[in-house]
Amino acid sequence: MTEHQAAAPPEPATGGVIELLGLLAYASLVAFFRLADDASLATELSDKADLAEMAVAQFGHFQLLSGHISELGANPQQAMRPFVEPIDEFHARTAPSDWLEGLVKAYVGDGIAADFYRVIAELLDEQTRTIVLTVLADSGHSQFVITRVRGAIAADPAVAGRLALWARRLVGEALSQAQRVAAEREQLAALLAGGSAAQLGEIGRMFAALTDAHAQRMSALGLAD
Amino acid sequence: MTEHQAAAPPEPATGGVIELLGLLAYASLVAFFRLADDASLATELSDKADLAEMAVAQFGHFQLLSGHISELGANPQQAMRPFVEPIDEFHARTAPSDWLEGLVKAYVGDGIAADFYRVIAELLDEQTRTIVLTVLADSGHSQFVITRVRGAIAADPAVAGRLALWARRLVGEALSQAQRVAAEREQLAALLAGGSAAQLGEIGRMFAALTDAHAQRMSALGLAD
Repeated sequence: MTEHQAAAPPEPATGGVIELLGLLAYASLVAFFRLADDASLATELSDKADLAEMAVAQFGHFQLLSGHISELGANPQQAMRPFVEPIDEFHARTAPSDWLEGLVKAYVGDGIAADFYRVIAELLDEQTRTIVLTVLADSGHSQFVITRVRGAIAADPAVAGRLALWARRLVGEALSQAQRVAAEREQLAALLAGGSAAQLGEIGRMFAALTDAHAQRMSALGLAD
Repeated sequence: MTEHQAAAPPEPATGGVIELLGLLAYASLVAFFRLADDASLATELSDKADLAEMAVAQFGHFQLLSGHISELGANPQQAMRPFVEPIDEFHARTAPSDWLEGLVKAYVGDGIAADFYRVIAELLDEQTRTIVLTVLADSGHSQFVITRVRGAIAADPAVAGRLALWARRLVGEALSQAQRVAAEREQLAALLAGGSAAQLGEIGRMFAALTDAHAQRMSALGLAD
């Protein structure tokens, strides 16, 4: 090993990576609580159990992500703290008023999270990428939602318009909180932009890709978007 | 094999066993929701995560138990139905008013459930016993509660009296719902009494043993009971 080689080791975990993991960990923890809460809107025991299963998957993600933060030598509570306000605000603004809205929110949230994990996996160091891909592989608990929502629309077509509006509002609120986070957290924005905080256009393109994937999910649900 | 031996095969799953599994499955599912809900009372993220972990363990129990009901050829939703009202009523009457009450309820509930699993394991067929012992082995997520409650009492000794009263109320409500269930579900009562529905005294002794174990847990928490 020469001096020169030793001077260029694999990049250590940057502040941006810790911030990203903190954001994802807190988002997962809150998703756990929100899904468990929304499941209580279900009247059928089997529906309750299905949504509870999605909640439990989110808690597994939280454990993986916060475990990785600790492994990187950072404090998970501290890493999550900056994201408490924007994520809590998102959920406060998007409390489902009934079971169907809860289902759509679970499905939309799960889908956007999976897309986001897929995009960021490429930007991360090997070890963090493995964690993110593990979380990603555990997604897909929301497939049962498609049957339920399509069934509800078949029974009452008027439901489709209301749920499509609801889904659009969910994405709007998510994007507005995401832009706020990107603006406030420079290191995180730099990481997502692939190295330069100035490349905020990159983040815009990432959001655009996520929005496209969202439109496809809306079709799957039978909701024209 | 003689005719005589063939006439005495291992007892198939009786209605009592299905009822018991339905009771335990619904109790676990509701415990999941209540613990997730109570965790939201925590201000510290690490406290939230600890209680959420207990909730997730309960959901695992629910999955095991309802899976076993299906294996026995019964419908889990139907098996749980008779216990929805008494268990929901128990929780409606014991909603914690703060974080400490939530912790004590989690600890007391977890402990009583574990004792109960230990007692009934002896009464069950081999296959059901294995499930019940698996659930039992997964208990003990509540140990962190001891530290928190003792810490709270050290900081403010007046807390002890209030929490001791609260714990007594929890047990009283649990026993009153349990007696109601035993009175309404003859097959279940017969199973728990070890074969004869007339032996309700057996159930009384079981409750007494559970109450003793509860008193020991109260000491562990630093609560004179």
